[in-house]
Amino acid sequence: MQPIILLHQIQLAENLGAVARAMGNFGLTQLRLIQPKCNPDDPKAIAMAAGNEKVIENASLYQSLEHAVGDLELVFATTATERELIKNYYTPKSAIPLMHDKKVGLLFGPERTGLSNDDLSVANHIITIPVNPDFSSLNIGQAVVIVLYEWYQNKADQESWLHLGDTKPVNHKELHYFFKSLEAELDRVNFWRVPHKKEKMWQNIRAAFLRMQPTEQEVRTLYGAIQAIKK
Amino acid sequence: MQPIILLHQIQLAENLGAVARAMGNFGLTQLRLIQPKCNPDDPKAIAMAAGNEKVIENASLYQSLEHAVGDLELVFATTATERELIKNYYTPKSAIPLMHDKKVGLLFGPERTGLSNDDLSVANHIITIPVNPDFSSLNIGQAVVIVLYEWYQNKADQESWLHLGDTKPVNHKELHYFFKSLEAELDRVNFWRVPHKKEKMWQNIRAAFLRMQPTEQEVRTLYGAIQAIKK
Repeated sequence: MQPIILLHQIQLAENLGAVARAMGNFGLTQLRLIQPKCNPDDPKAIAMAAGNEKVIENASLYQSLEHAVGDLELVFATTATERELIKNYYTPKSAIPLMHDKKVGLLFGPERTGLSNDDLSVANHIITIPVNPDFSSLNIGQAVVIVLYEWYQNKADQESWLHLGDTKPVNHKELHYFFKSLEAELDRVNFWRVPHKKEKMWQNIRAAFLRMQPTEQEVRTLYGAIQAIKK
Repeated sequence: MQPIILLHQIQLAENLGAVARAMGNFGLTQLRLIQPKCNPDDPKAIAMAAGNEKVIENASLYQSLEHAVGDLELVFATTATERELIKNYYTPKSAIPLMHDKKVGLLFGPERTGLSNDDLSVANHIITIPVNPDFSSLNIGQAVVIVLYEWYQNKADQESWLHLGDTKPVNHKELHYFFKSLEAELDRVNFWRVPHKKEKMWQNIRAAFLRMQPTEQEVRTLYGAIQAIKK
């Protein structure tokens, strides 16, 4: 299965075109644009796509990150630097074996700021490209091409994967329902005590479940457990 | 030793800037421009360099490829497709171990056409990035970033190299003198017989010596052998 590229709030049409060209170079076809800040029909995007503009024409548009990752089983977000969130960090190369047989999204942030901590909180894991620490800001097209290059070189060389048997990984939409019911329950019992602490605490709880990468069956079991405790 | 980037007849200032940015991302500082077709001071180059424009300001300008590679010990040219010349082809990853302890040049061609066979003939070896065969044309900035990414990831992980003892690899200037004397001698004895066959035959002979990567001492010995035969 080929990964899906997700661009969050991409700003420059040239960069959108460069991403489309890179996708063609490594045989990828599925692009999702979340709140793009440039016009996908911009001639500069078409010019930079260098013949692969159909990837842009066929791109899906989304109004929120949450919807854009709904059907995905594994989401990697890319960042230049480590963040506070407790997530697993992977190099591009080490991330590839995890993608085996899963519906994967690769999420890239806006050019000027990169992904916020809130954006990152939808992802299971982080990909960071090892670069010169004194000049670590990669162009978005360059970041995409490096990750896709590693995917293309290594997709046939996957050394380990999780055996799932009859079940399958939960997708992000189902996981989100679980999060909503868990959040409502934690609100109800006044788990946060101090309201301003909720945002960070809740990010950390979701990060833990995202690292877990539960199966559908496991999420159903967890959901049942919460319902049972409630009664 | 860090490799030196050589851009032959680069056309677009944006791409020059993207190369400069990528060099900064992987800690490279030495850039050579051979017959650039854009103005290195173009604001589009500076903008795309994203803070690393000093690489462009410090770039050396050359009027010929031959002069630009004169002091180098090992030159890799990059191409999207295999050519007729009998050269060793390397993936970016497999090329890195050969660079150990050598003064290396990485040569990239003009955007529209890539490097000609004549341009390639100055190189010892070829680097080709494995890509989708149906859409194999990489943007020059993308090609540079992939090769530098591999260099940066693997420079500490070099498994084998050639032991040179007291001698050292010949540089391209000395090798060029040897070629000139060999060519003059072959012309003198009418080695080519049919004049129009010379270009291709002579490219192949040079390719063989470039694959050999002789030491300084070996080139001197070969030169002496030709002089001896002449007498």
